[in-house]
Amino acid sequence: MSTALPALPAGIPRNLAYARGCLRLLDQTLLPAAERYPHCRDLAAVTEAIGSLRVRGAPAIGIAAAYGLCVDLAAALAEAPPLSPEAAAHRLAGARAALLATRPTAANLAAALAAMAAAERRVLAAGAGAPALLAALEAAAHAWHADDAARCAAIAAAGLAALPEPARILTHCNAGPLATGGVGTALGVVLAGHAAGRRFAVWVNETRPLLQGARITAWELTRAGVPPTLQVDGAAASLIVAGGVDAVIVGADRIAANGDTANKVGTLPLALACAHAGVPFYVAAPLSTVDLRCQTGRDIPIEERGGAELLPDGGAPWAPSGLALRNPAFDVTPAGFVTAFFTERGRVGPPYDSAAFG
Amino acid sequence: MSTALPALPAGIPRNLAYARGCLRLLDQTLLPAAERYPHCRDLAAVTEAIGSLRVRGAPAIGIAAAYGLCVDLAAALAEAPPLSPEAAAHRLAGARAALLATRPTAANLAAALAAMAAAERRVLAAGAGAPALLAALEAAAHAWHADDAARCAAIAAAGLAALPEPARILTHCNAGPLATGGVGTALGVVLAGHAAGRRFAVWVNETRPLLQGARITAWELTRAGVPPTLQVDGAAASLIVAGGVDAVIVGADRIAANGDTANKVGTLPLALACAHAGVPFYVAAPLSTVDLRCQTGRDIPIEERGGAELLPDGGAPWAPSGLALRNPAFDVTPAGFVTAFFTERGRVGPPYDSAAFG
Repeated sequence: MSTALPALPAGIPRNLAYARGCLRLLDQTLLPAAERYPHCRDLAAVTEAIGSLRVRGAPAIGIAAAYGLCVDLAAALAEAPPLSPEAAAHRLAGARAALLATRPTAANLAAALAAMAAAERRVLAAGAGAPALLAALEAAAHAWHADDAARCAAIAAAGLAALPEPARILTHCNAGPLATGGVGTALGVVLAGHAAGRRFAVWVNETRPLLQGARITAWELTRAGVPPTLQVDGAAASLIVAGGVDAVIVGADRIAANGDTANKVGTLPLALACAHAGVPFYVAAPLSTVDLRCQTGRDIPIEERGGAELLPDGGAPWAPSGLALRNPAFDVTPAGFVTAFFTERGRVGPPYDSAAFG
Repeated sequence: MSTALPALPAGIPRNLAYARGCLRLLDQTLLPAAERYPHCRDLAAVTEAIGSLRVRGAPAIGIAAAYGLCVDLAAALAEAPPLSPEAAAHRLAGARAALLATRPTAANLAAALAAMAAAERRVLAAGAGAPALLAALEAAAHAWHADDAARCAAIAAAGLAALPEPARILTHCNAGPLATGGVGTALGVVLAGHAAGRRFAVWVNETRPLLQGARITAWELTRAGVPPTLQVDGAAASLIVAGGVDAVIVGADRIAANGDTANKVGTLPLALACAHAGVPFYVAAPLSTVDLRCQTGRDIPIEERGGAELLPDGGAPWAPSGLALRNPAFDVTPAGFVTAFFTERGRVGPPYDSAAFG
């Protein structure tokens, strides 16, 4: 598979770029107020960036983790050359564990780390030293990145084949270029369609608590020349039920073997509204998001994040102090509500099982 | 009907108090940071307080409007005594129109103003002068207030009869004491139950965009000794579907003759989740919320508010500037999703029609 990255839509910056032991990333927590690109030169900076959502979106997390292994091995080589293959392997095992622990729900994180571990085993089995191992891991991470971009393009094509013209599309959270290595998943359908002259109107849910829809999706769409209409999450159901939406398209953080789909909290109510109104509900995701070890959604671990995310950084308090706060990052949409998945192998409709996703 | 107001639960302040041409109200926009009680001594102050949600909640809006007529007539008498009965009636007609225009969805506003107009006609038909008219309107407004408090108590009793013990209750927005003239509607059930020793655990949706759940409901519950757990609106469906809720109870802003119910935006997705999970979905509201002129929810006007409410007052921007914003204040839950209404005449179950509500 080629490691060349396809061009992004006009106006969209590259979210992840690795070179010589340094991962440069767009800090998504500062958008849309500021566009800053911190450089991560050690593992702690990469894990902090993932854990604090500077890098977010399931595919992007996997890519950042793959590069994070390279950052860590490069740092080890710079600190104490020469590094034995055994010491390099030990160092990488620690880095893998640290990266895996950053976010528990996204399947792509584990998949990327597993692919990198396989590359490492191949190189070490061939008797290579640590510098050659680093070069091989860098090539593997670049390949993972380019592969994700290619999958995004294929997912977009699958989505475009399913959508009417013109189409009114509602999305939630962010499944755009910044969440992936390419044009995005759910938003990739919109952006690729816009580039192809399709007439799409887009509604974006703000996506509390961290407002990825308002901060990131709306920013990406505006930059790409498809300015959306923003609404609060609770307003989506009435828009869907009133006939204002032709399709809901969302991304996914993990998909169980039966099609149950974990995505950003607030996705399930959209699926319920679509089912009530007879509106298609699509999930756009690479097949690496499918975790066949999860039979159903009940097997998907749902990340519970700190309640402080619900409260504002400054200004007047929103709630009495000391309140108990529930902050699940994701919810699970039962497979029966998913009209189809848009994947890099095309549209996957029901029945969903390991053969459909395999 | 008695005009004495029953005591509120310990810790809950009186939201509306009228005396001698002055309406003292708790400014709900400042909660929970500050507890301030502006005094409205003219009609403009009352309409501003309603329009900007300093007073909010359908029953409270009706009470404030009734007192607002008294404020305006008292101001007219103070400005230019003596006032002819004809001039007083003309002044009151203008005040009614201004008050009616403050919020378009709440049925209680029109009902309160109609009751006040009936009182005015009775007094004027009896040949009274403007000072006697003011005294009569003050008595009518106090009676409307006390009547709402009595209805709240009866609604709470109807709800308590329907709930299991213990019960895990989810509510949205604010239908508590501050939204009414008494103990509240949806929250009145919780507060009356707590006072009666019932074991209730309560989840509160923050209720974007104006966060009435976080700011007001959580504050009331904490003050009353029933601290709730707060969550974002999008997290409610997963809690309901996972079996974490025994009942959803919400208030209502207007109920159509067929039971379709307009309530704060974000209510409809809760009803959809309850239907999917087999969890009861209750609406607690006085019968003055029913508008028999609305055959179905399609006849209920849904207030579209300014998009600026979606954006933060200060701090970093949440969204690109210039974005289109959709901000409906309410949504309509079809009657088929309402397990029962808790009213001052007890539990009203399906089928819903003008006879059931009449």
